[in-house]
Amino acid sequence: MATTKLRNIKLTIEYDGTNYCGWQIQKNAKAVQEVITEAIAKITGHKITLCGASRTDSGVHAKGQIANFRTHSRMTPYQFIKALNSNLPNDIAIRAVKEVSKSFNSMYDAKSKDYRYTILNSPIPTALDRNFYYFVPYKISISRMKKALKYLVGRHDFRAFATRSSAKENCIRKIYSIKITTKNDYIYIDIKGNGFLYNMVRTIVGTLLLIAQGKIKPEDIRAIIESRERKKAGPTAPAKGLCLLRVNY
Amino acid sequence: MATTKLRNIKLTIEYDGTNYCGWQIQKNAKAVQEVITEAIAKITGHKITLCGASRTDSGVHAKGQIANFRTHSRMTPYQFIKALNSNLPNDIAIRAVKEVSKSFNSMYDAKSKDYRYTILNSPIPTALDRNFYYFVPYKISISRMKKALKYLVGRHDFRAFATRSSAKENCIRKIYSIKITTKNDYIYIDIKGNGFLYNMVRTIVGTLLLIAQGKIKPEDIRAIIESRERKKAGPTAPAKGLCLLRVNY
Repeated sequence: MATTKLRNIKLTIEYDGTNYCGWQIQKNAKAVQEVITEAIAKITGHKITLCGASRTDSGVHAKGQIANFRTHSRMTPYQFIKALNSNLPNDIAIRAVKEVSKSFNSMYDAKSKDYRYTILNSPIPTALDRNFYYFVPYKISISRMKKALKYLVGRHDFRAFATRSSAKENCIRKIYSIKITTKNDYIYIDIKGNGFLYNMVRTIVGTLLLIAQGKIKPEDIRAIIESRERKKAGPTAPAKGLCLLRVNY
Repeated sequence: MATTKLRNIKLTIEYDGTNYCGWQIQKNAKAVQEVITEAIAKITGHKITLCGASRTDSGVHAKGQIANFRTHSRMTPYQFIKALNSNLPNDIAIRAVKEVSKSFNSMYDAKSKDYRYTILNSPIPTALDRNFYYFVPYKISISRMKKALKYLVGRHDFRAFATRSSAKENCIRKIYSIKITTKNDYIYIDIKGNGFLYNMVRTIVGTLLLIAQGKIKPEDIRAIIESRERKKAGPTAPAKGLCLLRVNY
């Protein structure tokens, strides 16, 4: 039998993170990475290593997670997308499949990532989208939050916003932009950065909510960043409000 | 103790119907009506009769279901909305509470109802909103569907579109409007009528999809209506695509 070429396949993935322990395979819990790896094994007959661009946490969602794997399978991208979606639970959907150059690595080649955090700011909850927002029933000031954004944008040591960072870890990241928009009672916080530390987006949101309640001042962000101490920043906002929208290469 | 006035309370309700047997209380299955009735009993101490405007089927959703009940409770509408939402599962949300005139009946006083049916017309499914659309992966013609709409609008005997209608039942209903709009791969079918027979919206959608596939002609709707035979119309489209948007009084 002739040996077939080793191909590099890139997946664009949407998932509802509600029922998963996150992207990465863990003991005793179901991970998105694992479920997709098993579906690929089922259709190709081989266990592959699926490399994801972002290790989203338990309960975090994705509209545009990117992953890649190597395979000798001769299936076309269209055959892959049909077969994968037929073999995945419906809270995970493969939105695109592309054959890419041998050297492409979804994690190392990522230039930036776009995350969206959604808040429902109303005394009254909704039902249909309940797993996709953080419910904030008290009054908050959006204009105060907006005043804090300029202190976050740029290249900083974000250790104060990282959960469980080791002393040796390089915590310098660059935030390209943060925008806050609203629609009816929803508040969207869109963050683009070259990378994010563990829980960094959610801690930024938790800190912005302290500012929105008047508990700390917008300019306090500067001192929080400089402190490099996790306890100076606000609480970690719930996972369900966070969604990985896009990975840019 | 002085007797308190009997008040009539109107609720606006949003729910994800995925995990319910529909609005109406049934044996051996959980109904939205039942869950709300129990929450009211818990906060007022009394079992009431909750009258809903529409008996949505198993799996059908609502953004604006209307219901009313009579109570001697002195709670304010704001107290009701807070207490009810605290005592309901998060796939049911009370969106508004209003005290209305003694004579108001959410079912009999309804002038019209607005339903939306959502189709995802793409070879590729999505994950986040998977419980809120009917997945139609094959090519269909929206312009053919649109040509059929004029035959449905108006006052007709819709028996051909009703599941399990009794011979004696009056099947005359008036459809005020049907509109089809699209956004990306989504098709929205919005129907306003003075009332709907059992499965009528879903059978209209199933029939429009036969037209969209070229299996029957737009003008065939006329003969289907005239036949008054359920078997002449198309299949019943799945419940998950249907949502009761609004009840008008």
